[in-house]
Amino acid sequence: MRTALVQNDPAWGQVTENIDQIFGLMSKEKASLYILPEMCYTGYQMRSKDELEQLADSVESENIQRFFRWSKENDAAVILGFPERAADGRIYNSSIFIMPDGAFNIYRKSHLFYKEKLFFEPGNTGFRVIEWRGLKIGQAICFDWYFSESFKTLALMGADLIAHSCNLVMLHCQRVDFARAIENRVFIATVNRIGDEERDGEKLHYTGQSVCVDPLGNYLIDAPKTETGCFAAEIDPALSRDKNLNKYNNLFQDRREIFYKNIH
Amino acid sequence: MRTALVQNDPAWGQVTENIDQIFGLMSKEKASLYILPEMCYTGYQMRSKDELEQLADSVESENIQRFFRWSKENDAAVILGFPERAADGRIYNSSIFIMPDGAFNIYRKSHLFYKEKLFFEPGNTGFRVIEWRGLKIGQAICFDWYFSESFKTLALMGADLIAHSCNLVMLHCQRVDFARAIENRVFIATVNRIGDEERDGEKLHYTGQSVCVDPLGNYLIDAPKTETGCFAAEIDPALSRDKNLNKYNNLFQDRREIFYKNIH
Repeated sequence: MRTALVQNDPAWGQVTENIDQIFGLMSKEKASLYILPEMCYTGYQMRSKDELEQLADSVESENIQRFFRWSKENDAAVILGFPERAADGRIYNSSIFIMPDGAFNIYRKSHLFYKEKLFFEPGNTGFRVIEWRGLKIGQAICFDWYFSESFKTLALMGADLIAHSCNLVMLHCQRVDFARAIENRVFIATVNRIGDEERDGEKLHYTGQSVCVDPLGNYLIDAPKTETGCFAAEIDPALSRDKNLNKYNNLFQDRREIFYKNIH
Repeated sequence: MRTALVQNDPAWGQVTENIDQIFGLMSKEKASLYILPEMCYTGYQMRSKDELEQLADSVESENIQRFFRWSKENDAAVILGFPERAADGRIYNSSIFIMPDGAFNIYRKSHLFYKEKLFFEPGNTGFRVIEWRGLKIGQAICFDWYFSESFKTLALMGADLIAHSCNLVMLHCQRVDFARAIENRVFIATVNRIGDEERDGEKLHYTGQSVCVDPLGNYLIDAPKTETGCFAAEIDPALSRDKNLNKYNNLFQDRREIFYKNIH
């Protein structure tokens, strides 16, 4: 499946313009699946719960419905990060997987980073794998990468590809994705934004360099650090479903769960 | 604690000479703890179960007792890999942690690699952490690294340092140790041999490059690929016991075990 990583540069709070920018970037590559960063059209650096209340969207909101329409019109799925207002009013740092027929899946970030803990509810969905057009896709958001259990859980659930929406301010994740890919024999798409965001004197620099790593650890995509773009790669599930490392070793069968007792 | 990684080049089956070489290398650096490769004095590439029977040693064997004496005489602990003949006659790919007072701990490799499965019993000890002179040390052997659960289990048991005895034929592990160190905030000492081993026409090339990585991902030791040596670094448990990533995030407290259900 041809999959595109959309590396954008949103302006804080300029929601409509940011979505226009995203659609412009997406139009540059024809793909079946587009993956976008965390909080991709709002900006990231909330300063208060009130600000977040202003920007949070429900699935039915016009902003999210624009992506549903785009998906249908282009017959392609879109996975994007956004601040989600749930039916009960709680706000999550979420990723929505939108399919052309209007189906969708919401994943809510399990591991909140830094000041997100002040503003967002901890994710309550857990990890899930969605099969779409023959590819099994798991969603994850930014800091989830730090906990190897996140991607391992998705791999054990059968994921071929982990759609990992990020707002990374360091380059550690892009480096560790080599490990995450080979230890799980999955494709990983870490999609990051670029640019700076300065609010009340606190400046965050986003590191770009979105990467797509194949199950053998090859970097199929290694995007620039300071330019927006849409970068596509082919995801072949035959590669992610072969968990044999050699004639004697199988990644899943060789696990010694009895010795991992204290992980769960 | 000053810890030395001993990168040697054993000749297949030349047990006495190999141990002499090891003691020669160890004499080059003064340390409190010495860590050696997997199967460090026998060579690795067994061709049959019979060959392994010939080389396997009990803890009481003269070969292993030489290390006990060395430990006592030098008032330093030694962790080394060897083919262990257990009391019931079974043979394991083991690591023994020998302390100067004669105490010891055996760890038996949990994840057997490639043809080891034909010759060795799967390890039955599981992972364990031993506190010695204020440092909490966990043992692991080579292919265990591939399974992130191995080092995570040791970290959750309180390990400051993972003494990882290897016979690596690729360079992936040395690269992934960056991830293993930061995702667990532990010190990792991956100790590898160098040299080639050709038996019945099948040649293995060992990649050397023993590394010691600190909990922040810094490579304190990054040894050469083709030279023997003894390389020392200082292990400070204050660094491995601080699991706070920032004011809001703690590596252990932030785990969402409820979502890792399928790992165990």
